[in-house]
Amino acid sequence: MATKSEKILTIAERRGFFYPSAEIYGATAGFWTYGHLGTLLKHKWENLWRDTFLKLNPNYFEIDDCVIMPEKVFESSGHLEHFNDPLTSCKKCNSRFAADKLVSNALGIEADGLSPEALTKLIRENKLICPECQGELSDVKQFNMMFQVKVGALGEITMYLRPESAQSPYLAFKREIEALRRKLPLGLAVIGKAFRNEISPRQGFFRLREFTQAELQIFFDPDKINEADKWKEIEKFKVKLKFADADKEQEVACKELNSKYGLPKFYVFHMASIQKFYLEKLQIPKELFRFRELSEKERAFYNKIHFDIELNLETLGGFKEVAGLHYRGDHDLGGHQKGSGEKLDVVTDTKRVLPHVLELSFGVDRNICALMDIFYKEEKERTLFSFPQCLSPLDVAVYPLVNRDNLPEKAQEIFDEVSKEFRAFYDTSGSIGRRYRRQDEIGTKYGITVDNETLKDGTVTVRERDSMEQIRVSSDEVLSVLKKLFRGEADFKKAGKPLK
Amino acid sequence: MATKSEKILTIAERRGFFYPSAEIYGATAGFWTYGHLGTLLKHKWENLWRDTFLKLNPNYFEIDDCVIMPEKVFESSGHLEHFNDPLTSCKKCNSRFAADKLVSNALGIEADGLSPEALTKLIRENKLICPECQGELSDVKQFNMMFQVKVGALGEITMYLRPESAQSPYLAFKREIEALRRKLPLGLAVIGKAFRNEISPRQGFFRLREFTQAELQIFFDPDKINEADKWKEIEKFKVKLKFADADKEQEVACKELNSKYGLPKFYVFHMASIQKFYLEKLQIPKELFRFRELSEKERAFYNKIHFDIELNLETLGGFKEVAGLHYRGDHDLGGHQKGSGEKLDVVTDTKRVLPHVLELSFGVDRNICALMDIFYKEEKERTLFSFPQCLSPLDVAVYPLVNRDNLPEKAQEIFDEVSKEFRAFYDTSGSIGRRYRRQDEIGTKYGITVDNETLKDGTVTVRERDSMEQIRVSSDEVLSVLKKLFRGEADFKKAGKPLK
Repeated sequence: MATKSEKILTIAERRGFFYPSAEIYGATAGFWTYGHLGTLLKHKWENLWRDTFLKLNPNYFEIDDCVIMPEKVFESSGHLEHFNDPLTSCKKCNSRFAADKLVSNALGIEADGLSPEALTKLIRENKLICPECQGELSDVKQFNMMFQVKVGALGEITMYLRPESAQSPYLAFKREIEALRRKLPLGLAVIGKAFRNEISPRQGFFRLREFTQAELQIFFDPDKINEADKWKEIEKFKVKLKFADADKEQEVACKELNSKYGLPKFYVFHMASIQKFYLEKLQIPKELFRFRELSEKERAFYNKIHFDIELNLETLGGFKEVAGLHYRGDHDLGGHQKGSGEKLDVVTDTKRVLPHVLELSFGVDRNICALMDIFYKEEKERTLFSFPQCLSPLDVAVYPLVNRDNLPEKAQEIFDEVSKEFRAFYDTSGSIGRRYRRQDEIGTKYGITVDNETLKDGTVTVRERDSMEQIRVSSDEVLSVLKKLFRGEADFKKAGKPLK
Repeated sequence: MATKSEKILTIAERRGFFYPSAEIYGATAGFWTYGHLGTLLKHKWENLWRDTFLKLNPNYFEIDDCVIMPEKVFESSGHLEHFNDPLTSCKKCNSRFAADKLVSNALGIEADGLSPEALTKLIRENKLICPECQGELSDVKQFNMMFQVKVGALGEITMYLRPESAQSPYLAFKREIEALRRKLPLGLAVIGKAFRNEISPRQGFFRLREFTQAELQIFFDPDKINEADKWKEIEKFKVKLKFADADKEQEVACKELNSKYGLPKFYVFHMASIQKFYLEKLQIPKELFRFRELSEKERAFYNKIHFDIELNLETLGGFKEVAGLHYRGDHDLGGHQKGSGEKLDVVTDTKRVLPHVLELSFGVDRNICALMDIFYKEEKERTLFSFPQCLSPLDVAVYPLVNRDNLPEKAQEIFDEVSKEFRAFYDTSGSIGRRYRRQDEIGTKYGITVDNETLKDGTVTVRERDSMEQIRVSSDEVLSVLKKLFRGEADFKKAGKPLK
């Protein structure tokens, strides 16, 4: 029996959500292509993200930068020195392993953050061997995960592919705060590629070497960290989270997070916004969502406050990180100010200040992966993705019941009409039941069927994906009915006449 | 006196259209950042492109792929062997030059496509020297312009940054034609990054090492190259073009291009669509637009028909390439079929066929650069970008006339309202005339001013950018008036009462 993970991957590849990049040459681990459906889903997620987080404050803006960056950037950011994974390899079969993960899997302990020496000692003391061929493992070495790129005709300029999109806003901060003539806080977002030479990218589509991030870096006055404009609106809102030292999750009101747990208001406001994004916009069931605080040992030394956003994914065996909210202090602008020699402090009403950074960081591919896990459903005669309608790759499919009697002509007319506003698909092949199931399988929210009744009384059948309920709507009104449904202004069953 | 080019660059940097990437570390030639305004402009251009070209045929779709690709891809595509620039360097100061451009500039001849030996001979015979320091030049060598990336813990996998987005659809073709269950033609588009190690990327923002392409690869049955679905609609449409052997441009009806000049209907249909995109959607003046046929010597050997789309750009001294329409035959699928061993032919109604490719290739950054050149205007008291309203980075700005008397509160309310549908900017600082000019400078189409009259009769002033005309509109109706203006359903002067 195929696992859920295998079933989803099969659909993803067969229908065009995603598949290995350059697969006709054999896949290289960690590189994937978004097919035509995956691209639509990704764009919808990204636009929803923009619409949510860029609208939190009129001072939040998006920029778009190069992914190839000068070496000096990563000297200042610390990536050249610190962005390492501990590597061990098999002396016999040459397989390579992330040593911390290997030790942690073999011994069932938390090995994240241990030094190469400590990991080597654990491997030797416990006589750990190659999981592939039982050969002897090498001593553990640090391995830098950035990809180097040599630029210039003689390769004389050493540059790197950015390992996180975050560096772009830090580099652009000085230019943008001047261009925008705004006071703090200033938010600069990037939706773009980042690259990491992962040692062994196993988890399919979840851990990639080339991936897309959606990140918002907010530069703010550290003296105002306990202020949030819209605090009143969220004071009573309950955040679902697990503290580092707690055994289980709890729900705590924002007000209490601030007063009892000492989390600053500016941080808590963005926590609430992220939870609303997942639960209200993406419609993730609350039981599958949580913030998880990282312990001091787990988190980067410059992160003063760090909660991951985790979703419980059946295909990956539990809660997995899909985003993070990091209070990074002055680590970033401080490092670049020192490294570049450019002053990066700004004038506020009363003083000069080097802004601190709050980072909202989302792995786009991981979120897509999570959506496909969470909304995948199996029923007796069909599988479906019950995506919220704002996310479904295709909004609507249009079908002539049969390929004769002028039904295709009428259906084509309706297809052209609804295509003006919606992402539509026209399908004529196979029985109508089979065509419905093909669209259910990829999560298309509505179907419109043109039948013989249409030629008599001008009405068409509109079918809703999850309930499979059908209503009759005048073909003249079908576009406006769809608009109302997508705006949430109409209830499906009342949007037309019940089917006899 | 600053040149037009310098003036536009100054505005671009100061206001946040674009600026050198990582500039606090000193710019690396060929790498640029899109600031907050540039990002909006780029996204609007890209969405307009999607809305135009993906809607030409219900069989045209978008995909999204990795930029890092296996070496074998470029063995098959020919890039490893042929994607070279001839390089010469100065033995004294080490400056490097594209030898064909150096020879062509020095001797005023067409040196594109000459062999390294021929170029070396021309340099020696004409005693050409380093333009920077008058030193001696080296022999000309071939230089591959792809960036190499070493993947895996030991760098054991050699990959490359794609030099053109086109390879992604070729690699995905087999998967997508099966997933989509469609017949030919099938179009696969990519909007994404590509990378070229240009020897000396001088022309500022126009020739980049990291750049964005918007490309549509159409796979079609070569036996149907002289068919086009909507031929009747464009038969009489006149295309403006310059043939390779002609001295000047001419306008020729599609029908005649087919019957007299032998250009196939499928090619001509896409020519007409591209011209409509530039002239009707982007509103480029016709005198600045042309197709230019490349001679056999200029074009790649596999391109059977090749017209560049050129715009006449004052800042770059004449007609420059911003896009291309290439009939590439079976070069691409043929090469990948041979290299990968995968069958890439498909079944049509009557036979098996290896599809041919028609490529629509647009340089996104070059198009942005061109828009800023073409729509830049200088008037007595202001400069402006007279972008068509579908392209202006900001749709509307909202101003309280003065910062007192409850005007800011009312203006803020209107700002919140119009922000729901439009990209809006709120500005309170400086005289109203200065604020208008600041928005004109970045091309914001409309301005809404709240003044004392607003508090009395509820009307606001709406100002149009190009004409600077003003009308009074009820503040309750300002959102719906804007909607009508942007949909092209209202004439500005008649959309409100004339200002007294």
